[in-house]
Amino acid sequence: MNRYAIGIDLGGSKISGALVDQVGAIAYKESLPTQAEEPVASVLGRIQYCIEKLQSLVDGVILGIGIGVAAMTDSKRGVVIHASNLMWTNVPLRELILERMGMKWKECIWVDKDTNAAALGEMQYGAGRNSSHLLYVTVGTGVGGGMILNGRLYHGASEGASDLGHLVLDPQGETCGCGKRGCLETLSSGKAIARHTQEALRRGSESALSDMNIEEITAYEVVEAAKKGDNLAKNILTSAGHFLGIALAYYVDLNNPELIIIGGGVSAAGELLLEPIRQTVKERSLPANFSTVKVVPAGLGVDSGAIGAASLVWQNFERPPMKVDKE
Amino acid sequence: MNRYAIGIDLGGSKISGALVDQVGAIAYKESLPTQAEEPVASVLGRIQYCIEKLQSLVDGVILGIGIGVAAMTDSKRGVVIHASNLMWTNVPLRELILERMGMKWKECIWVDKDTNAAALGEMQYGAGRNSSHLLYVTVGTGVGGGMILNGRLYHGASEGASDLGHLVLDPQGETCGCGKRGCLETLSSGKAIARHTQEALRRGSESALSDMNIEEITAYEVVEAAKKGDNLAKNILTSAGHFLGIALAYYVDLNNPELIIIGGGVSAAGELLLEPIRQTVKERSLPANFSTVKVVPAGLGVDSGAIGAASLVWQNFERPPMKVDKE
Repeated sequence: MNRYAIGIDLGGSKISGALVDQVGAIAYKESLPTQAEEPVASVLGRIQYCIEKLQSLVDGVILGIGIGVAAMTDSKRGVVIHASNLMWTNVPLRELILERMGMKWKECIWVDKDTNAAALGEMQYGAGRNSSHLLYVTVGTGVGGGMILNGRLYHGASEGASDLGHLVLDPQGETCGCGKRGCLETLSSGKAIARHTQEALRRGSESALSDMNIEEITAYEVVEAAKKGDNLAKNILTSAGHFLGIALAYYVDLNNPELIIIGGGVSAAGELLLEPIRQTVKERSLPANFSTVKVVPAGLGVDSGAIGAASLVWQNFERPPMKVDKE
Repeated sequence: MNRYAIGIDLGGSKISGALVDQVGAIAYKESLPTQAEEPVASVLGRIQYCIEKLQSLVDGVILGIGIGVAAMTDSKRGVVIHASNLMWTNVPLRELILERMGMKWKECIWVDKDTNAAALGEMQYGAGRNSSHLLYVTVGTGVGGGMILNGRLYHGASEGASDLGHLVLDPQGETCGCGKRGCLETLSSGKAIARHTQEALRRGSESALSDMNIEEITAYEVVEAAKKGDNLAKNILTSAGHFLGIALAYYVDLNNPELIIIGGGVSAAGELLLEPIRQTVKERSLPANFSTVKVVPAGLGVDSGAIGAASLVWQNFERPPMKVDKE
């Protein structure tokens, strides 16, 4: 009998579900939109529909359901503490899904923040297949992370671990949405990359992007321009990578990982982002710790969210297949 | 039958041994000096003497020997990678002690860096008794650390975890012994505190310390002066605490601990050091993560090195008695 996990990636604008087998291959997938300010019950109904659709297609046994949410979560209780996109606060997601799906799913539903799910997915099926000490970093609209220590997800004392985005790197810098100044997100996120480009163009910097309507420039256009050799765009990505490197050098000396995986939309820049990251990590961390770590692009593609969510199920059924240190 | 562990703290200037029971009480202790450039065999002989002396005094069973070393260590293999004070490189300490003590001690000797041993000792018997996610920081000649995650010591991928001392906090700052600029050790260590005080006095700052021979001022005198209300000394400790706070805020957002324990000689300053640490951690970390963590002084006194080393034995015989998260 084939064994599967259902992975649900619950983002701000859509629900992506997939039926994933033990080697991380997707048998079926299903995607539905979510709307801003949609009531909780309506989003839950779409998740239920998605799960039932995948269930109906399966030829085998489904071991559980993993749900990765773009949110702060309490993974032990299965609660979404705060999801700014969905405007959810303290939603007991596991319990609510359980009510809809029936008690046979008790003990079989896991909820975690999407970056933790992605970190796990990368370890099980992606760029981290031979690593048991890794950090996954997503550089998208914001900057977030998920960490694996000794082959297991690490959540911290109150599920606040791997919160990279608000490390203060430039205390005299720009004010961040969080109220502090100079957070990593103000320096290296997709939003920051777009803003810095717009500001440079307004100051009259030369760039192929100056043909565009400045307000419409996003990190996507900056990455595309950089790939075509545009100097302004390349410099802005180098700066973003430099500040990511400062934050990651701290991580390297504190947690001594063997792998740092860079994902998220901005990682489409490839070496234009990775190389300045590596350069700064090298300059800033201890040589012994730097020599242990590799900085690589994410290995899972567009379905990484759903595959990562499914990984939450596998982690709870079996120790990961990789080397796990005994301590 | 009473059960004991032998803890050996191998520092740059002395060997401190203790026979420690399961509640962390010292039944007997023994201390011997080490000399600079003393041959390895001679140091080993003193350790052996110390162990045998403690053995001869015991009324009960000795479960094992833990050795904490002021060094980079490979705890899995029991090797001292590099101990600058002892001038040791790649000394297979566990194996060499085993040769002297006999094969009945196979599987019963553990070697780790002293700050890891201290972190474990604090969790088992000191300030961290109710915590399973903690960082121990020693502020002495240098700055070092040891971390406990999920109730277990965490070593990292290549035993480089919790290397706080060389986090670069001021890239334009003083050159550190490691070759980089502005490492935490150049800002907050005992050496830095002494040097900053000497420099201020040479510039003519007013202080009760100006009566002393400037070259003879160490962190000890600065802490004593600060306790008596000397403003220069207090300001220098505030600055040291501020930079410790910056480094610890990074730790708080990355690893979300519930406890940070400050030990080492400079921690004798008490609140004069702890308060600026807390203040900066509060300013720099995320509110949810800051609200989870307490910054407290170490709970073990002058024998913390030997008690911590003995804790290496207990950790390997039983899970610690505190809450250990399942993940």
